[in-house]
Amino acid sequence: MLFFSGDVQAHLDELAPYVAIPSVSRDADPGTMRRAAEWVAGQLARAAGRVEETGGHPVVRGEWLGAPGAPTVLVYGHYDVQPTGSLDEWSSPPFQLTRDGEVVRARGVSDDKGPVYMALKVVQAFLAQEGGLPVNLRFLIEGEEEIGSPNLPSFVTAHAADLAADLVVSADGAMWRPSEPSLSLGSKGLVSLSIEVSGARDDLHSGRYGGTVANPAAALATILAGLHRPDGSVQVEGFYDGIPPLSPERRAEIAAVPFSEEEYARELGVPEVYGEAGYTTLERLWERPTLEVNGVGAGGKYTVIPHRAEAHISCRLVPGQDPSRVLGQVSERVRELLPRGLVVSVHPDPGAVPAYTIPPDHPAVGAARRALEAVYPGEEILLAKIGGSVPATSLFEQVLGAKTIFFSFSTADERLHAPNEFLRVRRLGEGMRAWEALLRELGAALSVSR
Amino acid sequence: MLFFSGDVQAHLDELAPYVAIPSVSRDADPGTMRRAAEWVAGQLARAAGRVEETGGHPVVRGEWLGAPGAPTVLVYGHYDVQPTGSLDEWSSPPFQLTRDGEVVRARGVSDDKGPVYMALKVVQAFLAQEGGLPVNLRFLIEGEEEIGSPNLPSFVTAHAADLAADLVVSADGAMWRPSEPSLSLGSKGLVSLSIEVSGARDDLHSGRYGGTVANPAAALATILAGLHRPDGSVQVEGFYDGIPPLSPERRAEIAAVPFSEEEYARELGVPEVYGEAGYTTLERLWERPTLEVNGVGAGGKYTVIPHRAEAHISCRLVPGQDPSRVLGQVSERVRELLPRGLVVSVHPDPGAVPAYTIPPDHPAVGAARRALEAVYPGEEILLAKIGGSVPATSLFEQVLGAKTIFFSFSTADERLHAPNEFLRVRRLGEGMRAWEALLRELGAALSVSR
Repeated sequence: MLFFSGDVQAHLDELAPYVAIPSVSRDADPGTMRRAAEWVAGQLARAAGRVEETGGHPVVRGEWLGAPGAPTVLVYGHYDVQPTGSLDEWSSPPFQLTRDGEVVRARGVSDDKGPVYMALKVVQAFLAQEGGLPVNLRFLIEGEEEIGSPNLPSFVTAHAADLAADLVVSADGAMWRPSEPSLSLGSKGLVSLSIEVSGARDDLHSGRYGGTVANPAAALATILAGLHRPDGSVQVEGFYDGIPPLSPERRAEIAAVPFSEEEYARELGVPEVYGEAGYTTLERLWERPTLEVNGVGAGGKYTVIPHRAEAHISCRLVPGQDPSRVLGQVSERVRELLPRGLVVSVHPDPGAVPAYTIPPDHPAVGAARRALEAVYPGEEILLAKIGGSVPATSLFEQVLGAKTIFFSFSTADERLHAPNEFLRVRRLGEGMRAWEALLRELGAALSVSR
Repeated sequence: MLFFSGDVQAHLDELAPYVAIPSVSRDADPGTMRRAAEWVAGQLARAAGRVEETGGHPVVRGEWLGAPGAPTVLVYGHYDVQPTGSLDEWSSPPFQLTRDGEVVRARGVSDDKGPVYMALKVVQAFLAQEGGLPVNLRFLIEGEEEIGSPNLPSFVTAHAADLAADLVVSADGAMWRPSEPSLSLGSKGLVSLSIEVSGARDDLHSGRYGGTVANPAAALATILAGLHRPDGSVQVEGFYDGIPPLSPERRAEIAAVPFSEEEYARELGVPEVYGEAGYTTLERLWERPTLEVNGVGAGGKYTVIPHRAEAHISCRLVPGQDPSRVLGQVSERVRELLPRGLVVSVHPDPGAVPAYTIPPDHPAVGAARRALEAVYPGEEILLAKIGGSVPATSLFEQVLGAKTIFFSFSTADERLHAPNEFLRVRRLGEGMRAWEALLRELGAALSVSR
């Protein structure tokens, strides 16, 4: 067993300057992104850590290949973070790591800077205390995960030989909930797009022009309302095509997960759960595709007819759905819903991502399960799925021929992508212990399975 | 005939410091509002101009009662302005009067600072050049018109004896279009409200929570979409109750107005006109009530389920509709449209306003028509209605027993309430000439009609 300092404050002091770099991939300047990348590369100094160019924000690479004959594992994560949203809604400055009882708060601390930090510390501990690792390791920490990894495909393809691995372990992709350890056997795909409805050249006085021209905000509402049926299902022709029906076995497995809809609703602060008719809440979360309105904006509080209205929507996809087909279907439906008298344009975001799964009997799943059992003795390890999307997984499968397991010590309720993102402090110790156990297990499991 | 300086620049130099006071009634501090009021009071120095308190922003009053036996006219207007909206959309600073060819641009220059300026200058010219006026005049220039005149009813009621008049002439309420002079025989009523749909405590990651809870932005879209039928009519139970059918005579009168839908659409920059089925564009504008979505806001461009979504809507009302009943009907419909799993709240804005009309055979209408004919010789004077709302009119009718005529030299296309509000420079001269003619005509017409 490796020795890890029990001094939580020492870990937080080390993590704080990394979190302080506002590496918002959507907005940040190249210098800021590079500083974050260099922080990661510096942590990998003993594994040839370095920053490498892509067509966009750089990636951090590194490798330690000193275990000839042992399997090779590619560790994936990201150093970029989501925008902060409204600063008013933050209880402390978003880029200042702030301890608040059992948690630390900051943008990116849970997604994905904290989880990457844990992996880095374990590798350092192995090299310092044992002079080597149970597996060969490669690192690929990217800076564009939060904007759909637009440059990762070309980078991985160009460096496929140097990234060759038997398995990818993702430090991104949260545990499902704080009450028990869980492993994720897949992630949903993602496509997203903006809709813009345009009317007159300028905002118009709602009295002096009211009744004469169509209203872009009202038209946008009609479009958005037409994307779902009253039963909560997505009303887009072909959206569900190709999705295999949920098997009775999987339904039984999900039904066996301890889960209270009432408690879930209470924790989130909603009156009740809601979603596609005919499926339980966990079935919808793990196995069914969704279409969400992420934002809308038009006009203001004046008595005007706004001249334009915008919305952003995203779809989470499941296996069987083709991202570009879904984008086309949604765009078609949007155009079909526009009332007369206005102009609509649809702008798909780059970086469509298909859904991803790993079979539950894959040897890496067994290794990860045993690693978690070692850290959480006596606890049931839930087999969940990630409602979120990790674009890199499908890419690694296609280009490197390697499956990915999600091994993050973030938890899904930690306000990822929202104001006041936080990480449970206890996850630092749990995560480092678990990574140690995982690497030891993988050394054995993957060697056997080869 | 009075002499008015033909030096346009001199007028603009005098108007500029008034326009420079950002008297936004919705946001401005009391000191700013008072400075604007004091500017107006200063212009009325020879008519006992003074600032008087209300429960909110003060009013400016004044009177010249030196024509015993002659009728008394109350001049109404307002010194407050709308918010600027996004500064990015302004071509010049909103509170800096900027000449741009044939127009001057600034917030409030058209609604209602420029039109009030014209009335003030005419009164000054009468007093300076003729030592008196053809009628007794009272002034009431308020500071809360753009927020629905919440304190005007109690002020007018408390000062009814001091405000007694045979007629009100409103310097607010624009001409219909620039191509010909017009008189407005009425204005629409107004009710407005905010709708807030709340879901979870915070924004939620659209993957990690997608499919489990209702989406406030999507629910708001469903609500807003449910307020109109596909034929453009308002889908609110009872909304049209009490409105008399449009008479064949009025339809014929409106049909006789030279108006090209294609040209109107082209000027506004929309592909085509749009509105309630069964009515022409001008019928909808002048005779039919409307419900408009003024603004919507929720979330942003991130892949979240926003935790709240807001909209602001306003209804323009016609004679026969009761404002508070309409507010109740719309609120009821909003609540009925909310999907499960969320909370909705409806916040009516203060200051509901009923519609107003003056009969076309009222002697003041004839006087105003003759005044316009004198300034626009040979041109047809159109009898239009104001799609906008002038809350004070019904109040004056109820409390003072006086009808109001609209006599403004603003024009409806001058981007009132929108960025880049402007006033046609030629209206300054036209307006002053017309006010002179009007006061002379009223001296005769109202004496006769008494």
